[in-house]
Amino acid sequence: MPKQDLYSVLVGSNDKSTVSEIPTNHLRVGLSSHSSLLSHLLRTLSNRTLPPPLPPTQILTLLSLLTSLDTQNHPLNIGCGEREARLASSILKVRGGLIHGIGRSGDVNEMQPKAAGSSVICVVVKIGVKDILQNSLNFDFLKKSTVTVLPTCTGLTLLLCLLTLKKSSKKSSNKVLWCRIDQKSCVKSIQSGGFELIIVPTLKIGDAVTTDIDALKALLDTHGDDVLCCITTTSCFAPRIPDDIISISKILKSKNVGHIINNAYGLQSSHVNSMMVGAVNKGRVDYVVSSLDKNFCVPVGGAIVFGPDKTKVKELGKMYPGRANGRVVEDMFISLLEVGREGYEELWEYRRNLIPKFIKTFENVATENGERMLKTEGNDISFGMTLSNFTNEECGDIGSMLFTRALSGCRVVPTGVQKNIGGSEFEGFGSSTDDYGVGYLTAACAVGMKEREVEEFGKRLDGVLKEVVKKREKKKKKEMERKKKEMKEIAI
Amino acid sequence: MPKQDLYSVLVGSNDKSTVSEIPTNHLRVGLSSHSSLLSHLLRTLSNRTLPPPLPPTQILTLLSLLTSLDTQNHPLNIGCGEREARLASSILKVRGGLIHGIGRSGDVNEMQPKAAGSSVICVVVKIGVKDILQNSLNFDFLKKSTVTVLPTCTGLTLLLCLLTLKKSSKKSSNKVLWCRIDQKSCVKSIQSGGFELIIVPTLKIGDAVTTDIDALKALLDTHGDDVLCCITTTSCFAPRIPDDIISISKILKSKNVGHIINNAYGLQSSHVNSMMVGAVNKGRVDYVVSSLDKNFCVPVGGAIVFGPDKTKVKELGKMYPGRANGRVVEDMFISLLEVGREGYEELWEYRRNLIPKFIKTFENVATENGERMLKTEGNDISFGMTLSNFTNEECGDIGSMLFTRALSGCRVVPTGVQKNIGGSEFEGFGSSTDDYGVGYLTAACAVGMKEREVEEFGKRLDGVLKEVVKKREKKKKKEMERKKKEMKEIAI
Amino acid sequence: MPKQDLYSVLVGSNDKSTVSEIPTNHLRVGLSSHSSLLSHLLRTLSNRTLPPPLPPTQILTLLSLLTSLDTQNHPLNIGCGEREARLASSILKVRGGLIHGIGRSGDVNEMQPKAAGSSVICVVVKIGVKDILQNSLNFDFLKKSTVTVLPTCTGLTLLLCLLTLKKSSKKSSNKVLWCRIDQKSCVKSIQSGGFELIIVPTLKIGDAVTTDIDALKALLDTHGDDVLCCITTTSCFAPRIPDDIISISKILKSKNVGHIINNAYGLQSSHVNSMMVGAVNKGRVDYVVSSLDKNFCVPVGGAIVFGPDKTKVKELGKMYPGRANGRVVEDMFISLLEVGREGYEELWEYRRNLIPKFIKTFENVATENGERMLKTEGNDISFGMTLSNFTNEECGDIGSMLFTRALSGCRVVPTGVQKNIGGSEFEGFGSSTDDYGVGYLTAACAVGMKEREVEEFGKRLDGVLKEVVKKREKKKKKEMERKKKEMKEIAI
Amino acid sequence: MPKQDLYSVLVGSNDKSTVSEIPTNHLRVGLSSHSSLLSHLLRTLSNRTLPPPLPPTQILTLLSLLTSLDTQNHPLNIGCGEREARLASSILKVRGGLIHGIGRSGDVNEMQPKAAGSSVICVVVKIGVKDILQNSLNFDFLKKSTVTVLPTCTGLTLLLCLLTLKKSSKKSSNKVLWCRIDQKSCVKSIQSGGFELIIVPTLKIGDAVTTDIDALKALLDTHGDDVLCCITTTSCFAPRIPDDIISISKILKSKNVGHIINNAYGLQSSHVNSMMVGAVNKGRVDYVVSSLDKNFCVPVGGAIVFGPDKTKVKELGKMYPGRANGRVVEDMFISLLEVGREGYEELWEYRRNLIPKFIKTFENVATENGERMLKTEGNDISFGMTLSNFTNEECGDIGSMLFTRALSGCRVVPTGVQKNIGGSEFEGFGSSTDDYGVGYLTAACAVGMKEREVEEFGKRLDGVLKEVVKKREKKKKKEMERKKKEMKEIAI
Repeated sequence: MPKQDLYSVLVGSNDKSTVSEIPTNHLRVGLSSHSSLLSHLLRTLSNRTLPPPLPPTQILTLLSLLTSLDTQNHPLNIGCGEREARLASSILKVRGGLIHGIGRSGDVNEMQPKAAGSSVICVVVKIGVKDILQNSLNFDFLKKSTVTVLPTCTGLTLLLCLLTLKKSSKKSSNKVLWCRIDQKSCVKSIQSGGFELIIVPTLKIGDAVTTDIDALKALLDTHGDDVLCCITTTSCFAPRIPDDIISISKILKSKNVGHIINNAYGLQSSHVNSMMVGAVNKGRVDYVVSSLDKNFCVPVGGAIVFGPDKTKVKELGKMYPGRANGRVVEDMFISLLEVGREGYEELWEYRRNLIPKFIKTFENVATENGERMLKTEGNDISFGMTLSNFTNEECGDIGSMLFTRALSGCRVVPTGVQKNIGGSEFEGFGSSTDDYGVGYLTAACAVGMKEREVEEFGKRLDGVLKEVVKKREKKKKKEMERKKKEMKEIAI
Repeated sequence: MPKQDLYSVLVGSNDKSTVSEIPTNHLRVGLSSHSSLLSHLLRTLSNRTLPPPLPPTQILTLLSLLTSLDTQNHPLNIGCGEREARLASSILKVRGGLIHGIGRSGDVNEMQPKAAGSSVICVVVKIGVKDILQNSLNFDFLKKSTVTVLPTCTGLTLLLCLLTLKKSSKKSSNKVLWCRIDQKSCVKSIQSGGFELIIVPTLKIGDAVTTDIDALKALLDTHGDDVLCCITTTSCFAPRIPDDIISISKILKSKNVGHIINNAYGLQSSHVNSMMVGAVNKGRVDYVVSSLDKNFCVPVGGAIVFGPDKTKVKELGKMYPGRANGRVVEDMFISLLEVGREGYEELWEYRRNLIPKFIKTFENVATENGERMLKTEGNDISFGMTLSNFTNEECGDIGSMLFTRALSGCRVVPTGVQKNIGGSEFEGFGSSTDDYGVGYLTAACAVGMKEREVEEFGKRLDGVLKEVVKKREKKKKKEMERKKKEMKEIAI
Repeated sequence: MPKQDLYSVLVGSNDKSTVSEIPTNHLRVGLSSHSSLLSHLLRTLSNRTLPPPLPPTQILTLLSLLTSLDTQNHPLNIGCGEREARLASSILKVRGGLIHGIGRSGDVNEMQPKAAGSSVICVVVKIGVKDILQNSLNFDFLKKSTVTVLPTCTGLTLLLCLLTLKKSSKKSSNKVLWCRIDQKSCVKSIQSGGFELIIVPTLKIGDAVTTDIDALKALLDTHGDDVLCCITTTSCFAPRIPDDIISISKILKSKNVGHIINNAYGLQSSHVNSMMVGAVNKGRVDYVVSSLDKNFCVPVGGAIVFGPDKTKVKELGKMYPGRANGRVVEDMFISLLEVGREGYEELWEYRRNLIPKFIKTFENVATENGERMLKTEGNDISFGMTLSNFTNEECGDIGSMLFTRALSGCRVVPTGVQKNIGGSEFEGFGSSTDDYGVGYLTAACAVGMKEREVEEFGKRLDGVLKEVVKKREKKKKKEMERKKKEMKEIAI
Repeated sequence: MPKQDLYSVLVGSNDKSTVSEIPTNHLRVGLSSHSSLLSHLLRTLSNRTLPPPLPPTQILTLLSLLTSLDTQNHPLNIGCGEREARLASSILKVRGGLIHGIGRSGDVNEMQPKAAGSSVICVVVKIGVKDILQNSLNFDFLKKSTVTVLPTCTGLTLLLCLLTLKKSSKKSSNKVLWCRIDQKSCVKSIQSGGFELIIVPTLKIGDAVTTDIDALKALLDTHGDDVLCCITTTSCFAPRIPDDIISISKILKSKNVGHIINNAYGLQSSHVNSMMVGAVNKGRVDYVVSSLDKNFCVPVGGAIVFGPDKTKVKELGKMYPGRANGRVVEDMFISLLEVGREGYEELWEYRRNLIPKFIKTFENVATENGERMLKTEGNDISFGMTLSNFTNEECGDIGSMLFTRALSGCRVVPTGVQKNIGGSEFEGFGSSTDDYGVGYLTAACAVGMKEREVEEFGKRLDGVLKEVVKKREKKKKKEMERKKKEMKEIAI
């Protein structure tokens, strides 16, 4: 058994003089530092909970230590396979990290024999994410289930969910009911999988746009056994509001139809989270898909999938056919250990506390410019104001002016936009309904936004709106003068 | 137009005294250094070829400079969307890189408005890979076509190819002919997509195992219009040899059936490359899928797809529904700039020159232990030796002993292994044929292997084989003694 | 003139199609990001003040960009000197930074022709430190003077100050009056320079230990023209309190004797800072030496020197004969830009606000254990409690127990310690006076300490003291029992 | 005793299920990787020799592991001192490394109780440097002596050597004989220490300039007991050649005068190294000072000091009064482990083999331009060619043209330069002799130069010389025309 503890290495079991220069009591304190660090990892693994936040140096030491377990870092390793995690670039050699990827051919969740350290890291990430979902978000249904972390975007992850459902269902079920939400990825994921897209129309109730549940029922009746599943959404741009997933999951349960929840950035919303628990408890939920970057503030490109049925979630991992890039998992490992469970709770809490100020600021701009806020209760992340006094062309100008003024993420939706996505035609695209009636602009109060950003957002938005009006006035004035001149000329 | 050149920043156009401490001639030389660096990038973009290898500091400066173009790094940026590339971890903030991911909802190849720098990096990577394929590997057919880089493993990439083919084909075509190669990922990718797997059997010709082309023809006739496509393979473990893709692509062309080539690590083989050109010129090839890590020595998890038809390759990018993690592209950017086209040519050349020594060393071990090399001409990456003198149990021991002795990547295949992959039954799994007749061991001479590794490989393999024999003898001797003792006892 | 702006590089002045893939409006926003970043640097250089805190990515981009100006990073550079900043290690190549060092043979403050970028970084650091000293600490006397940053520890810096003073003074002046403060470095710096050490004794006033100013005057009279200068101290372990530098500097001015202030970690104390201004305005101060790490929370090993006379401070830089390692300056550059002036003010403010809690906690431990706090008004960084109930041996135990319990930085000073430093004999070493009368323990409330550390400090210290008493009781009991037993035996 | 081995942490001594997900055989291989790595360190420490070169990841793991022993990285550490290695910048926290510096107040070579890991790193560096000097350069005299590594430039290190010698010598010895070599640092180091500079004149023998040994003897006689020591030089710009240190050290031994060898970049020269051994064996050598960056290709700013007398070398460490920045030691640690002893031998060997090509190239340029090489046998690093056909003004042009053409390190020395350094007047400064008679240009073939650099050096130098001549001709022609015109006008 290859045992070797650091203490005996440094002090030398046989040769007392090994590091005679360094006093034993110095080393003793040093080594207690090292062992304290390792015990953090130990506790995570055995308690199945995240340790309290660690400082950067300690996290990097753990990461370095764990990746030193991967075969390509073995001082004596000889690689005789076609894939040995060799690097051509000296920069990448120095950067280190999870070179050997994660998973194994045929299951991205399997342990990789050549990369024991990477496997430990994967396990820690799954433990950490589950800990947060279960204990910070109170997803009790996870107690007997599990979570899968995938290095794929939300859209591709939805596709993998669809394909997994398809595999265990009858041959003929090829239709996917999709509660309309005007965002390309989800439509694409259905089309990419070769499924037939059935659009469930929305209703406009006051300002809010939401799924027409009666229409959904009717479609379920019409298409019967051909329906593989229904995709609902819980995080969306205003005026669309999160679907009433409790009611819908009950219906789907009664019809025995699959249910995938597109919960891209919903984990940060308590409202959505409590609906989630209700949907799972009272109805049918197969898969919930959430984005890693949008909820956990890591680089773009990862997703988590969970649900009440452990077997189904595990089945999904097997649908990623091969070994995946380790970056997403490495970044989550680092973030989970540095931020900790409490840290994420604080981040999300900060956002919740920021909402009133955000709405107030936004509302002031609206009022100041003769517009009003859209009333979209239920959506506590994205908010909108009307652009009723602006032409569609001016709406376009507003969008690009905001962008070039470094205000990113605002969304201007004029009326009457037509769009074809992969063959499906959409009226009023952007507003998730055929005819919303008025142009509008949305902005999100999402996790990570800072108070000073809210203030600056108000100022810049106001500035742009006023600038557009000023330009319009100027143009009008010019036009008037031109006409006056013409009239004079005619008069002459 | 936001123009700002470094020189005027440092010297100060208005205020001559800005950095009066620093002599102008020092700055002049310094700034010429900076502009030389930028011009490398310029040349890449305008000439559409890789620059000569750059030193690490320069690459990192370029990377840093380009990522500074992404909106989240804009000193004045205010994020009002649900995805603003915010990071919670200070470690990740310091690491930097492509945080905003690549692509746009619905097309991983689209330019990302929030990340102009990341977009430039993507473009450089595509230019670089195409330059190498076209000019180092002489894939002339790329002149009018393009290459797609995906942050997905080979298996998932094959799945996306299948789904793309499916989309443009008739409804009923749901069968995929798969030229048997005993490796899980490819089978899984067919099954994951919900396709029906039709196994094309192999023939054993001498020691070599290869696709039974007559059987393939028969299967095409039997399944007719139901066949979506055929997947061939050009990189595989011995005794399987690369498929005769020229003949197969001709047949597929005549039958108007799609053709995907699983060319995981084939780019490093001149033999495969020349077949590739032949297949494209004389027959039908829709997609070729190659692994990034296995050919370009980057971290695991990326793939490239190319083919003679630009439209089809572009169509594929649209099948990745959403924005992907940027790590794979970032690592390729770094490696391409550091290694350069010449560098990759040298790496592949080194491998080719190492083959004779590898075979000789391997053969010596075989002969020395009463075995022989498998004759598998056509496969110049993976090689095998018989294990005819070893029992299946001993074969198992050999495998695990090699692994614990830090010889990774060898593959021991005993006879008679049965395996079920996602519902499909395989006889003689591992050897790509139902009954290969003899156990064997394979090892690969793949890109990145060093001469001293070859020597050490020989020593360790020889050591392990001898140890197994010694153990056997010892056991036998013990058994003999036990029997002698028993006989004596009986005699008494 | 080598002009090259990024925009024209990317868009291509001649060839409009250079990066046709990337929409111009994306690039425009990206490039405005880049130019905003550069303008931060510009403002620092032209306004001579630090910019507001920058996020890590932006700082690293600036650092990368500036080091790209150094000759060794010039893509076309050919090095024909004996020192060309070549690196043998690929790790160091990737790490980058200031390889060419700072300064020039003969003056560490001169601009280095081969490293224009490093020179800019040096200038920014000096601007930043001066900005903080002048505007946060109100050192108005710096308006017409300057600051020197040296990559040397406080002790070596004091030595350089002494040697600089010596150079401009009469031959015979070789004696240095040193206001006793029991810390090795300062004594060593005097001895290293070959100066004669004259110890100015201290007085014990109440608990506090401070320089005996009458004795100082007498020594000045005794040694007359032989005295080169006097070194006072403003940051010290309790019970030593900062010297009354205002009175002393007046005396030195009247006697025309040099004055160096050892202000190692005094910048964090408002009390010391206001004395500093007084001393400069009313008396003579040649050099003030402060530690970089102790005040600015950077890695150990740098110092700043300042004073009211620009010429003298500049003269000092010329005493570092050669080009110095750039790490200290690089780390300061990073810290200054990341923390900013406001950030440092907050750090120091936090410490000031923490003092009451620190004292309260410390006092509770003292009272609880039958001891008391030392009254050492004037020293608001280091505090002490008596150890009157503990033997010298027990004091030793307390020290090592605290250390092995990961409570670093406490200092236990028993009575009667004798020490010889480089030939000079000290009585009562540690307490800065020959006979302090009681053992004691000190702890510091220094910049960077956190509130939770204060609490934990109280708990651990209390625990250790109680453990020592318990051990003593146990030992006593054992002894008693032994004696009882003996008596019994005698009785028998 | 705080023991904790990684294996038991991961597998869990009490709880077998700790990481049940990860197969034991994966972990076993992983942990054998980790222990192999540690044993490299062990061997260095116990064998007192460098291990063979390690790959970057392994070095960084070791570094990370060792720095985790420093108190500030202890997960439970509470800092109660005035210096606790706290960092304000998140970038620096992530970068890690030796934050606590090296050494202890009063001796830069002492072990630092708060930084056991940094201490181990210091020990490894000293072992490594000594191993190379003793075993690659055959400095046998080191067997019974030691080496000191200082984070100070060569000049400051020379100053510390002078001060150390001074300390152990008679009061009156304040004169330093300095064998003239026209480079500022050394002169400055003597002046900085307050020593009296006695210049030993040079002789011109053929083209070569070297110390006038008879003059040296005479000066020794003249100044007698006032002489503290003599500083010789072994690495210098042509036409100065290395001093005959064997003869000089014999003389100094006989006169009982100290001897410091300024061996800045001499370690790369076999010729100098063999003289070094001779000088130590046959005469007196107190200290040899060599630059770290110039010999070992690390960042600028460190030096090593060695000599045959262990006590003297140790004494020197005590002259650095305080704790020094750890960067120099960290960078050497990394470089020594990555390059290894063999690697440095190869680097130096490469240089030696490059010399003939360098000379040939240089000579060709000289001949081609009507000049000749200077014959300066004995100096195998720096070489020179005459600039006899160029005016002093043109010489200046040549220098700045080379610099702006990114040819760094060439040195153009016109005739008749006068220079005052810190009060000492020099005639013919640059050439190390009062009147060299001809202008010249030097270039060095120093460690790290590449073959392609030599070729490019030739081309650029030739280009510049020709350009200067062309400019001169042009100017002359213009002048002629002007004169002709004038004459014509007069004629009219």
